[in-house]
Amino acid sequence: MKELEIINTIQNIINSEYIGDDCAYLKDLGIVVTQDSLVEDVHFSRKFSTPYQIGYKSIAVNLSDIYASGAEAKYITISLSLPKNIENNFVEEFYNGAKSVLNGVKIVGGDITGADKIYISVTAIGSTKNRKISSRKNAHIGYKIITNGYHGSSAAGLYLLQNKTEGYEQLIKEHLTPFISSELSDIIAKTTKNDYAMMDSSDGLMDCLYKIADNSKVKAKIYFDKIPYNKSIEQFDYKNLILYGGEDYKLVCAISADDLENINSDLYYEIGEIIEKTDNNIVEIQYKNELKSYSKKDIEVNLFRHF
Amino acid sequence: MKELEIINTIQNIINSEYIGDDCAYLKDLGIVVTQDSLVEDVHFSRKFSTPYQIGYKSIAVNLSDIYASGAEAKYITISLSLPKNIENNFVEEFYNGAKSVLNGVKIVGGDITGADKIYISVTAIGSTKNRKISSRKNAHIGYKIITNGYHGSSAAGLYLLQNKTEGYEQLIKEHLTPFISSELSDIIAKTTKNDYAMMDSSDGLMDCLYKIADNSKVKAKIYFDKIPYNKSIEQFDYKNLILYGGEDYKLVCAISADDLENINSDLYYEIGEIIEKTDNNIVEIQYKNELKSYSKKDIEVNLFRHF
Repeated sequence: MKELEIINTIQNIINSEYIGDDCAYLKDLGIVVTQDSLVEDVHFSRKFSTPYQIGYKSIAVNLSDIYASGAEAKYITISLSLPKNIENNFVEEFYNGAKSVLNGVKIVGGDITGADKIYISVTAIGSTKNRKISSRKNAHIGYKIITNGYHGSSAAGLYLLQNKTEGYEQLIKEHLTPFISSELSDIIAKTTKNDYAMMDSSDGLMDCLYKIADNSKVKAKIYFDKIPYNKSIEQFDYKNLILYGGEDYKLVCAISADDLENINSDLYYEIGEIIEKTDNNIVEIQYKNELKSYSKKDIEVNLFRHF
Repeated sequence: MKELEIINTIQNIINSEYIGDDCAYLKDLGIVVTQDSLVEDVHFSRKFSTPYQIGYKSIAVNLSDIYASGAEAKYITISLSLPKNIENNFVEEFYNGAKSVLNGVKIVGGDITGADKIYISVTAIGSTKNRKISSRKNAHIGYKIITNGYHGSSAAGLYLLQNKTEGYEQLIKEHLTPFISSELSDIIAKTTKNDYAMMDSSDGLMDCLYKIADNSKVKAKIYFDKIPYNKSIEQFDYKNLILYGGEDYKLVCAISADDLENINSDLYYEIGEIIEKTDNNIVEIQYKNELKSYSKKDIEVNLFRHF
């Protein structure tokens, strides 16, 4: 079964209004919740990552989902399944790495069990108090598209690790311990008057643009030259890395022009805007000499081909 | 590393006030949260359990923790990691099993990833609104000890499955799809005037008595003949199964005699009481002709020897 089929099967059985955004927004409790797992040899390899880095990334990917919702990250639970032959200091180093990215968030529970490989499942809970919460359905014509960091570094870093290429520490670091920040999310959630649509680029920039445009039934126009990236990825197929490379965990947001005026421009890069209503051809990218339209189908094929 | 050492390591690093009860009580958000994982060939086997039963049990063990806290179970997220060779209907049957035990709780998120074996991690969230929440530290002299179901059935059921013994469907059912109920928990959390200490018997009845007594620094006296159990386990070493057999997921509660008077006696079995303050010899069991004292060390050795 393909992932989309599986999600449809689940959606049919549980008929949930909550599945769609990265976090579930539980209005009656004033919280958002997200749960993401990392599996050894699927999401990380002990060949490339230290226990500290695995701990860091397990927490970072979940906090990033909370940031993308606009909520204030508050609590974490960690479920850790470890093989018998695990190194003695794994738990200590894992938790030290986890702790290094918490930024005030508290670890409040979870469990430890045995397993054949390392399985890590983390749940993060955020408070929605005094905050406006994101939805992918919230992008409207005239909204600006902004992001808060470089795209393509993580996928380039993974390539470098897999091909044992020396140098380029920053790219490798962005893959193993991606820098995440709640700064842009905090200010958006606390100051915007209008609804906004925000995601993190866990599955790549194009995935964010696609899902926001598709759920909002609008077309996003992106100016490729405005997308921030680390120049050292130009040695690779960098246009692909920037659009389709995953695991950068940067925020991508469609926000009203009015609300954007109140946000310090040091906190974001403006990369495009929402230009019209549509049910297809949902992303348009202006390269130097060329305007290219991407249909839902184009993007879906590429998202699956690349990762 | 042993489980206790690992927990101490984690506790030292994160220095959390929340680790101790099965659920973390997040007072500022008015919620409790718990996360428990089930790993194939550690917690269940596809030889014994259908996908439906695995789905049921994954949810039941987490709801049981919420019930033990006194909170109202509200939301679930499910992280499911599946091997490539998984049967086509696994996800559908798993979710049907999960759905069958939800009892109004909503599944609101999670993820699906690949893995070598089935790995399931479930997070459950409960609301503490208008409820008094349990703590293991809350047992006091004179409190009554009550439970809401049979002990020892699940471990007997596991033995029967492992030894391919026919018959005894009820015991096997209690292992594969343990009956859980929030009824006693709801009434305690909503009506008690005094604090109470409640746990579920996921790790056995003795584990509950031990942890409540140890954390409250009191001695629990139990009348063995009053412990409810399925008579068909008498063919086995049933005293051990009743005390140390895990996975029955029944509630065990130390509650003030005054508060107990307001609770319908159909909802519980009274099995003992808290008799004195102590730092050791924390459980005393009255058998027919014999009174036996159990120190912390006796119990710890037995808990680890048995499971």
